[in-house]
Amino acid sequence: MSNFAIAIHGGAGTILRIEMTPEKEKAYVGGLRESLQAGYGVLRDGGAAIDAVQAAVLSMEENPLFNAGKGAVFTHEGTHEQDACIMDGVTRNVGAIAAVRRIRNPILLARLVMDKSQHVLLCGEGAERFAVANGMTLVDDPKYFWTEHRWNQLQKALEKEKREAKANTRLDHSDDQDKIGTVGAVAVDQQGNLAAATSTGGMTNKRHGRIGDTPIIGAGTYADNRTCAVSATGVGEFIMRGVLAYDMAALMEYKRMSLIDAANLAVMEKLTALGGSGGVVAIDRDGHIAMPFNSEGMYRGFMLADGKIETAIFRE
Amino acid sequence: MSNFAIAIHGGAGTILRIEMTPEKEKAYVGGLRESLQAGYGVLRDGGAAIDAVQAAVLSMEENPLFNAGKGAVFTHEGTHEQDACIMDGVTRNVGAIAAVRRIRNPILLARLVMDKSQHVLLCGEGAERFAVANGMTLVDDPKYFWTEHRWNQLQKALEKEKREAKANTRLDHSDDQDKIGTVGAVAVDQQGNLAAATSTGGMTNKRHGRIGDTPIIGAGTYADNRTCAVSATGVGEFIMRGVLAYDMAALMEYKRMSLIDAANLAVMEKLTALGGSGGVVAIDRDGHIAMPFNSEGMYRGFMLADGKIETAIFRE
Repeated sequence: MSNFAIAIHGGAGTILRIEMTPEKEKAYVGGLRESLQAGYGVLRDGGAAIDAVQAAVLSMEENPLFNAGKGAVFTHEGTHEQDACIMDGVTRNVGAIAAVRRIRNPILLARLVMDKSQHVLLCGEGAERFAVANGMTLVDDPKYFWTEHRWNQLQKALEKEKREAKANTRLDHSDDQDKIGTVGAVAVDQQGNLAAATSTGGMTNKRHGRIGDTPIIGAGTYADNRTCAVSATGVGEFIMRGVLAYDMAALMEYKRMSLIDAANLAVMEKLTALGGSGGVVAIDRDGHIAMPFNSEGMYRGFMLADGKIETAIFRE
Repeated sequence: MSNFAIAIHGGAGTILRIEMTPEKEKAYVGGLRESLQAGYGVLRDGGAAIDAVQAAVLSMEENPLFNAGKGAVFTHEGTHEQDACIMDGVTRNVGAIAAVRRIRNPILLARLVMDKSQHVLLCGEGAERFAVANGMTLVDDPKYFWTEHRWNQLQKALEKEKREAKANTRLDHSDDQDKIGTVGAVAVDQQGNLAAATSTGGMTNKRHGRIGDTPIIGAGTYADNRTCAVSATGVGEFIMRGVLAYDMAALMEYKRMSLIDAANLAVMEKLTALGGSGGVVAIDRDGHIAMPFNSEGMYRGFMLADGKIETAIFRE
């Protein structure tokens, strides 16, 4: 089988064309291509889908443009709390972490949980103790995660909150789109095995240990060789309530839908009906790729076995 | 519509007949009946399913026999970390909390998250800050959660771990059954609305901020008027990987299965095939009830509109 392929996203939301300069666009496209090539390299050399999605996500975690790892958004308290998940479609083994503060590459800790823990989801300081016990080094200086762009986003969010409190208007989800972002990857390897990985800093100004859909198996991340691999991005609360990623798998398995139809139904109709905004990247064993989103834009791209590479930000 | 009904579980696992004295059995049955009657009272008086499942779970949280609230199991560090989730089948609104340490009734905090937060899943100290900000009092003295029975379970688990470390045998899930437990309830009210609630102390000797299936929407808890309400119990890692509760809903919606068939397939075949041990209580809008489990026993019971009440522990 040589239909190997990888698809990635770098977050969905309100990405206004008017705010997108040619320089910015070039930087994002460059980041997406770098991530795709990292994953593609693994697949081309005969590596496993699980290693390819890890490599692709790792690349975006290291890139300050994306809301994961370096460049993650700030919490209400001005800290960073990151979530990540990785799932192997061969065995449905999975590792996930939530609300970790001092992990440079959350996706590597999620992988460590998958490989070395009898549990699948660890959170907070406990997850960090697990990291240390398994030889991972914690980030000493939280300044590592600091970026001017994200700091300004937090200040803007805090000011807006203050204005709303004065005006006594209730906070709602309507402007969440510009506060979010996630990175994710799905892949099928030369053996036809599937995998998915997702990583995120969550929402700007989030509080109270909020966990979104990213580390939730079946919501933000899912992979099963019998159906598909999915990584979601968007307002996590709605993605969780819709059990979005597993819903796609169920539509394929139980209703015999194609990947494309299942992705369109799950995102464009069902997520929209719930009032949620976001998108997915998804792949099946034949190398079909779906990348629907109902937000204004989604950083996304794919790379196929023959080396064909494509990226996009806005709706065509 | 007068087919209102409630079904509950108080955990599944290795419940050996030989260790069950008549006194113990009487106490458990008494606890189950008390919980059922608390939920039934709400339904009989025309209350909502969401309030009925909350009342039923609250009753078991207050009962030291069950692994939730008072009577919750100990973590590796000798503390208590509790998870809970509540979901309304009318709106699919949901509230969940994970790894909270000082909440007397986790199900009430989950409900508060559902009613008052723009988020659906909060964890750890952040969740406790949310509780305080919304007028909830924290448990001052963690001794409140201390029970001799659970303390002895932890000591036994720690000794076993030491022996295994010496013998250099890898920890596996084979004896998890006697370390776990969860409480949960599902109900249909006089309006035909569904709801589900689940609460747990997790696994004895758990570590590293482990989160199980209980607070995960679609894994341990799910409710949707179009299909069913489900609360699961068992080894959470497998229930999460199988997205058990939502899988039942998907089988009903997409394959037109009955509640009973969907529950049997999801638990007796699919969970068993994954290697997982546990069970569910589930209900549909017609008041059908399913309570399959593949473990040796499951504390369980139901109560119907006409006042008929039944409880059971072992397989009949």
